[in-house]
This record gives sequence, C-alpha cells and structure tokens, in this order.
Amino acid sequence: MPTLADIVTELESRYDPRWAESWDAVGLVCGDPSAEVRRILFAVDPVAAVAEEALDWGADLVVTHHPLYLRGTTSVAATTFKGRLVHTLIKNDIGLFTAHTNADVADPGVSDALARAVGLTGPLVPLSPSADDPRRGLGRVGSLAAPVPLAEFARRAARGLPATAGGLRVAGDPGRHVQRIAVSGGSGDSLLATARAAGVDVFLTADLRHHPASEFMEASDGPALIDAAHWATEWPWLADAAYHLASASAAKGITVETRVSETVTDAWNTTAKCEDFT
Amino acid sequence: MPTLADIVTELESRYDPRWAESWDAVGLVCGDPSAEVRRILFAVDPVAAVAEEALDWGADLVVTHHPLYLRGTTSVAATTFKGRLVHTLIKNDIGLFTAHTNADVADPGVSDALARAVGLTGPLVPLSPSADDPRRGLGRVGSLAAPVPLAEFARRAARGLPATAGGLRVAGDPGRHVQRIAVSGGSGDSLLATARAAGVDVFLTADLRHHPASEFMEASDGPALIDAAHWATEWPWLADAAYHLASASAAKGITVETRVSETVTDAWNTTAKCEDFT
Amino acid sequence: MPTLADIVTELESRYDPRWAESWDAVGLVCGDPSAEVRRILFAVDPVAAVAEEALDWGADLVVTHHPLYLRGTTSVAATTFKGRLVHTLIKNDIGLFTAHTNADVADPGVSDALARAVGLTGPLVPLSPSADDPRRGLGRVGSLAAPVPLAEFARRAARGLPATAGGLRVAGDPGRHVQRIAVSGGSGDSLLATARAAGVDVFLTADLRHHPASEFMEASDGPALIDAAHWATEWPWLADAAYHLASASAAKGITVETRVSETVTDAWNTTAKCEDFT
Amino acid sequence: MPTLADIVTELESRYDPRWAESWDAVGLVCGDPSAEVRRILFAVDPVAAVAEEALDWGADLVVTHHPLYLRGTTSVAATTFKGRLVHTLIKNDIGLFTAHTNADVADPGVSDALARAVGLTGPLVPLSPSADDPRRGLGRVGSLAAPVPLAEFARRAARGLPATAGGLRVAGDPGRHVQRIAVSGGSGDSLLATARAAGVDVFLTADLRHHPASEFMEASDGPALIDAAHWATEWPWLADAAYHLASASAAKGITVETRVSETVTDAWNTTAKCEDFT
Amino acid sequence: MPTLADIVTELESRYDPRWAESWDAVGLVCGDPSAEVRRILFAVDPVAAVAEEALDWGADLVVTHHPLYLRGTTSVAATTFKGRLVHTLIKNDIGLFTAHTNADVADPGVSDALARAVGLTGPLVPLSPSADDPRRGLGRVGSLAAPVPLAEFARRAARGLPATAGGLRVAGDPGRHVQRIAVSGGSGDSLLATARAAGVDVFLTADLRHHPASEFMEASDGPALIDAAHWATEWPWLADAAYHLASASAAKGITVETRVSETVTDAWNTTAKCEDFT
Amino acid sequence: MPTLADIVTELESRYDPRWAESWDAVGLVCGDPSAEVRRILFAVDPVAAVAEEALDWGADLVVTHHPLYLRGTTSVAATTFKGRLVHTLIKNDIGLFTAHTNADVADPGVSDALARAVGLTGPLVPLSPSADDPRRGLGRVGSLAAPVPLAEFARRAARGLPATAGGLRVAGDPGRHVQRIAVSGGSGDSLLATARAAGVDVFLTADLRHHPASEFMEASDGPALIDAAHWATEWPWLADAAYHLASASAAKGITVETRVSETVTDAWNTTAKCEDFT
Repeated sequence: MPTLADIVTELESRYDPRWAESWDAVGLVCGDPSAEVRRILFAVDPVAAVAEEALDWGADLVVTHHPLYLRGTTSVAATTFKGRLVHTLIKNDIGLFTAHTNADVADPGVSDALARAVGLTGPLVPLSPSADDPRRGLGRVGSLAAPVPLAEFARRAARGLPATAGGLRVAGDPGRHVQRIAVSGGSGDSLLATARAAGVDVFLTADLRHHPASEFMEASDGPALIDAAHWATEWPWLADAAYHLASASAAKGITVETRVSETVTDAWNTTAKCEDFT
Repeated sequence: MPTLADIVTELESRYDPRWAESWDAVGLVCGDPSAEVRRILFAVDPVAAVAEEALDWGADLVVTHHPLYLRGTTSVAATTFKGRLVHTLIKNDIGLFTAHTNADVADPGVSDALARAVGLTGPLVPLSPSADDPRRGLGRVGSLAAPVPLAEFARRAARGLPATAGGLRVAGDPGRHVQRIAVSGGSGDSLLATARAAGVDVFLTADLRHHPASEFMEASDGPALIDAAHWATEWPWLADAAYHLASASAAKGITVETRVSETVTDAWNTTAKCEDFT
Repeated sequence: MPTLADIVTELESRYDPRWAESWDAVGLVCGDPSAEVRRILFAVDPVAAVAEEALDWGADLVVTHHPLYLRGTTSVAATTFKGRLVHTLIKNDIGLFTAHTNADVADPGVSDALARAVGLTGPLVPLSPSADDPRRGLGRVGSLAAPVPLAEFARRAARGLPATAGGLRVAGDPGRHVQRIAVSGGSGDSLLATARAAGVDVFLTADLRHHPASEFMEASDGPALIDAAHWATEWPWLADAAYHLASASAAKGITVETRVSETVTDAWNTTAKCEDFT
Repeated sequence: MPTLADIVTELESRYDPRWAESWDAVGLVCGDPSAEVRRILFAVDPVAAVAEEALDWGADLVVTHHPLYLRGTTSVAATTFKGRLVHTLIKNDIGLFTAHTNADVADPGVSDALARAVGLTGPLVPLSPSADDPRRGLGRVGSLAAPVPLAEFARRAARGLPATAGGLRVAGDPGRHVQRIAVSGGSGDSLLATARAAGVDVFLTADLRHHPASEFMEASDGPALIDAAHWATEWPWLADAAYHLASASAAKGITVETRVSETVTDAWNTTAKCEDFT
Repeated sequence: MPTLADIVTELESRYDPRWAESWDAVGLVCGDPSAEVRRILFAVDPVAAVAEEALDWGADLVVTHHPLYLRGTTSVAATTFKGRLVHTLIKNDIGLFTAHTNADVADPGVSDALARAVGLTGPLVPLSPSADDPRRGLGRVGSLAAPVPLAEFARRAARGLPATAGGLRVAGDPGRHVQRIAVSGGSGDSLLATARAAGVDVFLTADLRHHPASEFMEASDGPALIDAAHWATEWPWLADAAYHLASASAAKGITVETRVSETVTDAWNTTAKCEDFT
Repeated sequence: MPTLADIVTELESRYDPRWAESWDAVGLVCGDPSAEVRRILFAVDPVAAVAEEALDWGADLVVTHHPLYLRGTTSVAATTFKGRLVHTLIKNDIGLFTAHTNADVADPGVSDALARAVGLTGPLVPLSPSADDPRRGLGRVGSLAAPVPLAEFARRAARGLPATAGGLRVAGDPGRHVQRIAVSGGSGDSLLATARAAGVDVFLTADLRHHPASEFMEASDGPALIDAAHWATEWPWLADAAYHLASASAAKGITVETRVSETVTDAWNTTAKCEDFT
C-alpha cells in the first residue's frame, strides 16, 4: 500500500509546488509521511462538513484546492474551527494536502476543467501564460462550437456547473452573440484587464465586486462578464485531479480509491428577490 | 440662486470631509465654485448613464456616493470613460460632488437609510462607532419589531431594496428566528468580525466573497449573512441626502430642486440558474 | 484637418511615453481625441498666462514640457489654479499634452537644444545615456569651437538663452579656460556626480541648491558650475519640437500651425543686490 | 477535574497574553479546551525529549517558555520536528501552552526566579519597567548581601544555576568587587544599554555575541558581563510557575499535579579547550 | 581655561540637541572633551577655507551651522574633502561643533537674526511654532515700521545681508506695498504653505526651485517671494551666537575669544546676464 | 617607501571592496593616502588595546577584519571609545584599513585559514559560493585525513585555534565519526541551512545562539555543531593576509614590515562552572 509520502510525490509531480504563487501555501498541511494511504477524498474547501465526509467514508487523505492556513498560524489549538479540523484529522490519521495556485496554472489545471464544464470545445490556451512555460498559466481561452446569444451561453454554463443558491450573474447585452470565451476558476478580478486585452466575447469567473465589474462594463466594447459561485468554478477540477492520480498510480501498480466530495461548500444556501413577492 | 460653493458648504456641513477615511477622495471633483446651481441629481455611481440623466434633466450638479477618481489621476483626457465624463460635465456646466465614507459615518448616514429600508425600527446605533464621536460610525445595528425566521427577513429586505438582477444571497438556517440586525451599505467584509462581536442575529451587507463568507460561517454560532447588490444597499441613502439638502436650503430661503436617479448602476443585468432548465 | 489623436500619435512617435521616468506623468492631460486640431502652442509651463495666450491665439492644443499633475489628483474642480486651467481648456476645446522626461532623453531632446543655444558645436552625446539605447539619455556633452575663459563662456551662454531676472550664476575660477561642456535642461543636481565623472570643464544646468553646489565645489579639481533659470534652460527645446511636428505633419500632407510661447514663466521677475545702493 | 480551558484561564490570569511583545506567539498551541487536565509538565523548550518525558509521565499538558512556532506556519505535517511534535501531542491528548515574553515581564516573572537563583537578596525591581505598570518589566536589578569579587559572584551564580556544558563566561576584572547586579533570563543583548544606564556592577544574561559584548566592554567604566546558557537562565522560573499554578488551583479546590522537566535542552553537550591537551 | 566639554555644555544649554530634527546631526563632530579652549571661530559651513581661517587665527574650536556629516559616514580617511578636514582639525587640536536645526528653532535663533538684518522691528513670533514650546520654532514673522513697496523692501534686505554674487531674486508685483514679513534662514520650501496660511505680505528665504516657486505664485493672492543666498540668510546668526557664548561665559568668570568668519562660502562667485552685453 | 595609497591598492587587489556585502563598511577608515607606510599591524578588532600595540610598535597602518563604524556615524568626537580611537590614530599618523566580508569571500580568505588551523587537508571549496565566481564565497568545506570521533576533532580544533576563556562548545554525539567538515569564520548562523544541505559531518563557526542551535540539532540527522570564539575563528587569517601583503610588495621591490597582533580581543576573560565547586 502506498505511503502518504508516495501520494504526495505523485500529486506534486502533477502540481509542482514551485509553480505556486509566492503568497500561497500549498503541499502537505498535516499527516505523517510514513502513514499508509488507501482512500483519498477530493474537495474544494477544508471545512468541517468535508472532514465529516472523510471520516464517514474512512478516507486516509483529503486533497483540497483551498489552503487551510493561507497565512501562517502560531496555534492549532481546537479553539477555532481550523484548529478543531487539525485535531480531527490528526486524531483520525487523515492527512490534508493542498494544490492551489499550482493546480490553477497546471496543464491541465483548474480552468481547463471549468472550460470543458461550460461547453468550450477545441484547444484551450492560458489567458495569462506563465513566464517560464506558456503552456501553463492562469485562466483559459477557448471557443464555443458556434456563436450563441450571451443569454444562451449563460444558460449552458449554469447547466454545466454544479447548482448553487446564487447561480450565475451576467453583465452585458443578453442578445449579443458570443463565441470566444475566457474562464478562470475562483476570484478573477486580477485578470479583468487581461481578459479585455485578449479580445474575448465573455469572461466567466467568480467573486467579482461592484467596483471592478462596474468599471469594466463602463469601458465600452469589452467582453461581457459572468460571475459564478467561487466553489462552483473550481469543483469541476476535482474529478480531473482524482482521475489522474488514480491512473498514474495504477500505471505503477498501486491501487488507490478516490472520491469527489459532493458537499456544497458555497456559503450561500438560499436567495431572496423582489419577484418572490409578486 | 445659490452658487456651487454655497451647495458644497451645505453638503459638507452634513458630510464633513474630515470624517472621510484617509484613503478616500471626497468633495468637489469638477465644477466652478462661482457657478449657479438650481437642479441637483443624486446617484450612487458617477457613470455615463447618470451623466446622461443629468444632461436630460438639466442638472447643474450631480452628487454621487462613489468617487470618480478614488486613486489620483494625472490625466482627464477623454480617452477613458472617466475623462469623457469629466469633459461632458465641464462642457455642460455640471458639477460633480462626492460624499463617500464621510456619508457612511454621518448621523444619519448611508446605513441608517439602509436599516430603515429593510424594516428595522426603533433606535439605531453604529456597528463600528467613530473614535471621536460614537454617534457616528460605520454600519448600524437595530431591531425588527418582532423575531421572524431568517427567510422571512430576507424576503422583507428584498422587498425594501430596489430590485437588482442578483437579488439577495443568504447564508444560515432559513428557519432561525432573527430580530437584532446589523447592516452596512457597500462592501462589508471589513466589518465581519465586528458584526460577530456585536452578537447580532444577521449581518446584511454587500460584495462578500467566498473566503470571508465561508470562514465566517464555519466559525459556528455567529450571525447569519445576507449579501445584497452594492448599489442597492447604498441607494436608499440618496433620498435622505436629497431631502436634507432641500430642507436645509429652504430653511435659508434658498430653493433647489433635487432628484434621485432611478438608473440601476449595478453591473449585473440578468442571471442564470440550473433551475431555469428543469 | 488632423484630429487630436493624430497629433498625439505624431508627438509620441518622437517622444515615446515609454521613455519617461516611472514617476513622471506624460501624454494627453485633457482634450477629446476626436477633436480637430489646427493651431498648436508650445510652452514650458502649463500656467494661466500660457492658457490665456492659447485662448487669444485660438489654439486647439497646448504642448508643454512640465506636467500639470505630476502627482495624481482626485479633483479638477476650479477651486485651484490647476483645476481652473482644466476648466478653461475643456470649455474652450483646447487639449493639453505633456512631453517631459521622454523629451529630455529623446534624440534630439531638450538638452540638445540647450547645448546649441549656449554655443556648443560639433557632435553631442548624452551625459547619462539610457540603458536601452545610448543615443538617448539625460543631459548632453559637447564642445566649444575653441577654449575660452569661464567668464566668457558664461557671457555667451547668457546671450544664447532667453533673458530672466536672475540670469546665470557661476561657480569656479572666471579665468579658467573651458572647452568641454555638459548641459542638462531643468534641475540637474542628480547629474552632478555624473558630470564630475565625465571630466568636463563646465556643467550648466538649473535649480542647484547650496549644499549640492557647495559640496561639489569643495571636492577640488572638478568642473565649474553654471546655474541658469529652470525655464530658460528648457525653452530652447520648444522651437525644436514645434519645427519637427510641423515638418513631420507636412510630410504627410497635413498642415498644422505652430507657435512658441514667449511668455516668461520663470517665477522671479526682479532682483536686488547690494551694488544697487552704492 | 479541571478542563484545559480552566488551566489556560488560570495561567493567563498570571501571565496575561496582552503583556507579550507584538512579535511573540503565546497561549495555547494545541489541545482541546474541553479536555480534562490532571498532570502538567513545565519545561523551557518544546522539543522531542520534552514530549517524550510528557508521554512517559502521562502528562495532559506541557507548559513551555519558548513558543513552538514563533513565526507562523502553514503546515503541521510530520515532515519537520515541529510538525512531528504536534502529531505526537495531539494523538496522545497532550496540550501545549506557552508563556514567553508575558512571563518575562510578569511580577514575579522569569528574571525574579533567576535573580534568586544566583543569590540576590532583598527587593528586586525591573531593569526595564513596562510603560503601563512599572512593577512589571524585563530583567531584574537586585543586590548581594555584601560586596564580593566578580570571580566569587560568578562561582556563586554557576552553583545556583543548573549545570550546562559551557557554564558561565565572564568579562571584566575578576577582582573587582560587585554588589548591585542586573539579570535577564534569555537573550539579553537588547538590554545592554539599559544595564549600563542603571549603573549596576554586573549584568548577567545569555546569548551575548562577540560584537555587542566587545563594544560594551570597550566603553570603559560599565558593568562586568556574565553570559550563561540561555536554557539555564530560564529554568529557575519553571518551579515558580508550577508552584503558583498548583497553589492557585488548590485554593479553588482543584487538584493538579505539576512537574518541572529536568531534561537539559541546551544544545551544547560538551566542550573542548586548549588546556585539555597540556 | 575652559575645556571643550565646558563650552559644549554652554552651547547646548542655548541650542539644546533635543530640539534638532530627527534627521539632523548636531553636537560635537570632533575634538577631545578634555582639551582647553580659548579661541572659537563661528562659521556657516565646515569647509576648507574656514578650516584655514581657524588655523591661521589659532582657533581651538569651530562652531558651524551646517553639519559636516549630515548622513552618517563609515570613513574619515583623507581621501575626501570631509575626511581631510577631520584630519586637519584633529592634527591641529581644533574641535568642530554644529548647531543646526536646534539653532533654527531656538529663541532667539537663526531666523531672529535674519529678521533683524532685513529690517523687521518689534516682536517676532515663530512662523511654524514648535509643538512643545510655541516660543521656539522655524522661521519668524515680524513687521516693517511702515508699509513700503516690495522693491524697496528687497533693496533694504539686500543692504542688510552680506553681499553674494547672485543677490536676491524677487517674485511679485514690485509696487505692491508690504509690511508683514516672514523670513526663514536656509532652504525654506517646506514652509511655503505655512507662509501662505500666515497671511504675510512677503516670504524671504533661500534655495527655492522653479516648481515650488512657480506653483506658489500661480495660486493667486499669496505672499510675494524673495530668494536670497542660503549662506547669506544664516550668516547674521553667527554674531548673535558668538555674542551670547562670550557673555554667558564671562558671567561665569570664563574668558573666551570669539570671531565670526567673513569668508563667503556661497558657491556662486560671479553672474552673467543678457544685459551685460547690451 | 610606499604610501598609504600604494598599500591600499595592494590590499584591495586581494580583497576587492566590490566583493563586500552591501551592508558592510570596508576600506580605509582614517589616514592620509599620501603618508608613507613602513610598519603594518594586523588585528581582528579595532579596539584600544590594539591601538596601543600599534603605537608601541610604531605602526603606520592597522589592518583589521572588523569595521570600526559598520553603521555610519556623524561624529568622531573623542567622547566615545571609537572617536577616541580615531583621534589616537590620526594624531599619531596611523591609518586604519578594514577588509571584512570582502576578505571572507576572497580566495584564499578568512575561512581557508580557519580550515587549515583546525586540521582540514586537501582541497577546500566555498560552503556558499559567490554567484559571480564560485571559487569565492562564504565558509569552506574540506576533509580530515581520516574519520575521527567528534570529540577528537573538537580537541584538535581547540589545539589549532588560539586559546580563549570559553574554548569550544560542541553539540552532537561525541563518539560519532566525522571527516567532512564545514567551517566559517565569525558568526555563522546564516549558514546553518547551507551546512545541513551540504551534508557535512560537522559545522564549526562562532556566535551561535540558543534558538538556531537548538532548532538545528532537533532536526535529526544533520551535522554536529562546534561553536568557537568569534575572535579565535578569524585570527588565523591575519597571518595569511600579512604574509601575502609582504610577499606581493616584495615582488615589486617594496619592503614593508608586518606583524600579527597577539592581543586577545575576545570579550570573555574567564569562566565559571558548577564543577569548580565540587
């Protein structure tokens, strides 16, 4: 049976920690490298509901996209939800591994899975290529098989992503025909100018606030914007990462069992609108 | 007829520029202090659609909540939408005045109007009182007349705010009974810890991203969260500001005509969800 | 008739904005890129007297060496002389364009015109060459046709530059023979060490204060110093810039009318000395 | 039986975390606040040998002077000795609590115990009093019952402190009579100037490097210096802290068992000198 | 005979080093505190010509206004003019003492002497009072006995100050009547806004560059400006400082001989103007 | 007879000042470059005892490893021991020259002499090679002729270095056999990680404090540590530097007399241990 160290080696061969941003915190968060690993759960967020799912299923390792401690901590005491998570995992011999911005820029990476989920076909190229290897990078640009109205693309994207309470928000003329699309899993505001410069018809991402979105739309003739739930844009990658880990291990004669968490960890569980009252 | 300088004096007596945050940019953005002012339009955002509304109505002054140039500029050439706005306003003798964080902390201020719009009754106190005068401050805490389920409060809040495509997103148990409510117009993530410490049942604000919202909800036993459109949370203040300017002027024998813009300047104009396809 | 955008393109082909220092603010400050441009006034400083000259002459564009807003502004309200200038220019359809450190380092640039004005002949080379292209750079080094006493060179330089109240101040032995000369238009204290290292006989520049000048002269065996009015050292460039813009436009079949402002914008209008009282 | 939370409350009533330096990391590092605590081990350093001692004795809590993670960490994986310590402690239900600079400045604190250990009698006052309460502070100043030669005081100090390989190093005239003594547990270089200003005869501390010590001794007429092992200067405090925790608990009818670790965690285990070869 | 330490004590009782700006470097620069002092030379600048004057006269101490090393040095080797000065002074047993910004703000201080030199009568108050004692501060504000045209005041100021090659430069309407005057010895650009706020008719100082002076004059209705040689504005203080040191010493029965250097250490020794050639 | 300038040139050809760290202060500290130099004293520290030795011997120049003013000073007055040293040296025509981090990284440099002193044979390579020339760098790695127990190597090292009160402190299993050794003269804590990565058996350096040493030893399977007196680790280099200066000068027909100071400038002059009392 493989050890945690073996699995970490395999994961880091695919998601090299040197590709992570300097402010990021990726790699093994807890666990003993000599422990044996049989069951691996993939999830977006390292939260209590995911830890329970891991416990119930008997997982030996949880692989998440988001770091537990993005900024350093000096205490893991069980007086906070994060420390409690560390205690739960360590006491139950469950490791925690994070692939974050190193998975974002990998080839294939987080935005490749997102691009396919919203219906892009054909080749995908990074929206913001990495300096050292332009096949890697943040975001992906691809195309729809044929131009469709923006509203129709938004409906397709909603259908391709896991359901969340808030769904997708769209800025732009619903009737505008769109074909060339940029996507970026997670918070995409740092890529707004890049998306405009790329000349795409739509930029689909998450966590856009009022001021960046408003200023982007005021500067006329740019792409339409679609804002989805942060969690929903990164979830499609989990199946991809799980599949590749299992295949790569199998190719070495190692059997690991993988599962993608279906717990919705988007914070918003319901919505309210004026229309609800008509 | 009053001059622009007179109106600025009146507005700044209510929204003292010294109350603004050090990073903010408030006050007169363009216009000649000796120009005469008869018609004043109030709006949240200094954008093209608002300038057109001002032109159509014959406004002499636009008062906005958001600054045009929050960070300094070295050019107002009409090569950007902001420079074009400056040209339009100056060529048509329309001034632009901003009351931003000084209006947020004023008594009454932006969050007072928001609190009333979502149904809070009785006295309101600042969520984060100003050091020099605790009657001023960011956010407001108030109460509903009687406890209601969270879902019911969310419906009331949606009814009380101007309609936007995205409506309100809610995090928390919909059946939980809530009565004590904190609200803060605009981006409220910097007040999350304060809202928790205040022990309220709900914190209603705008522009909450995945990580702050998720970490807030994971730390158990805190308030529920409601996230509305940034624009919608600040719009209720416009009528309040317009009313007080007109009254204060009238008390001095000066007649000014005020209007609140009804242009929705939220960037998102439509939504898409999975349910749309079932 | 050319548009403002056409003229900006022409000016920037000569004074590339990428050559400007990172702290500088060059390019179009106000004006509509689609406006037509017939008359262009060149001046050192964007001040009220220059704006009046532009109005009187019917200029469509003012090209200045100094930026109006070197540091960013968040307001152009007509409550300051700078905001008033913006209002005057925009209301009268006059654009404002700045070529500052990008004109300093251009080939030919500000210091080439200064060098010729004070009598340097033969080839000129940058005093501090640009890293990416050594033909460009700050300051120029050239030679007089024959060695002359320092006092004689100072007299010639005074004759070659436009008259100002303060004239030129000279540090060094008046009888010392000089031939190899470095000049730098505008404030030159940052180039003092470079001028010493270049081994020239004189360094002529502007805005030298007591401490840099005193320390420079105390370190023996270096160049003599001549300090002229900042305005006077940059004024010779205006004619050069105007001539090249007109010629380049004419070569494309475009006629523009250019004029060099003769308004003295040096702040000092008179002097007083002990000798006045003998 | 008391919970970990009870013990933390008791410890923090004596070593208030607000007294810690801003760069410090004190308080509970791991452990579940609801766990029961019966046996508490006190040690200077959170290292493997101390964790083993805790395991062997059946401790529920280790209280150390030094933080495990003075700078924040983003991982507690058992790939480093610190992460391995966290795993050992959590898997064995042992908490870890740190009182560092808050114990240094407490009254009584780390340097009170050191002062008594090296033979100071009578009242002790802080060498560098805290701004908000001058009874607290860094270091202590006290006196010997009678003046003795420096060499004699050094011998007494060596006898009073736990033995380490390196012993004490002394700078100053061995025959000089000394009586007024400043001591500071742990690294004392930041207090050298304060000790000189205090006019004491000797300053005893730890971790003094060549340059601070040499410059201190070159400036004539100051105190002599004694440099002991960092660990040895802080160890005397453990018994004091353990005694007070046990008494305070007993006064509330709570029985806890305390033990002071006798593991020497000074890194240096042996020495070599020229004399060894004569 | 007094020692250098005695004289330093006397000077610092008048020019307290704690009054100096945090970036300044005042006090004893070289010399042995136990050396005897009989002759003291006062000068503005610590330069070679002043050191020669000190040697020739047999001075034991030079008191200057300007620091030799405003920024720290790591070498006083005689490879620079400053290091050579240190060698000359030390080898000839001459001390060097600096009173700079502590003399500027003293009462009376540098600008008091300047104010009297240019003809101000009656009480003088600081232009920018010190926070801890408003009788001290930078600059002085005073009045002429009666209003005179600006040109006339400039002539009087030129007559009252030691002659320099450049004389005084004046900005403002020469016929404007002026009476209330602010003066500040040395570089005064940091006080421009304060002078405007003080509502004086003229601000006389030194080392004003083009941009601050031009922007100051463009903002209409402010004071006129007069720019003198830095050295000339500080020289009047030397006699005042020498007189007070001698008197204070005499009052204690100590005789010291003082002298004010008449070496002009302004860098500019001649000028050239167009008019020279007519 | 050579001048000081000649000797500086010779020394800097061997210890190029451009190799020094950016924070370092190397080169000539005092002295007149045209002075003649016959006798040169080499010492580690620029302290009073060394200056006396120079005076007694009639030295014209002192070459030290440590800078007198590592951080800049604005005064060399004889009110501090450093200023007094400058006065003594200048008044007695003795120059002071420092080769610090430029001597550390030279080839051969400070750690080469240390390596030979503790018995390393065969080729030596830098522990941390310089980026621009890997033959230079900090520390040296070399080997013993045959493996010996750590305790035996420590004894040899103690025998090879000049005696100090504290001797050497050793961390690690005394019986462990060691052969591959890294050494670094002076404070070596910044090289701890490099020494571990180099896979050596021992790292011998100076000035190691408790926390770096303790954390280094806790991380198992790394090198043993030996901590010597800072002064003792740099002293062996003096003879090397003196020899090379004399030879290089002789090769040019110049005779200089050199001497290595035998004054122990380690601050610690005696020790005390518990054993002393048994």
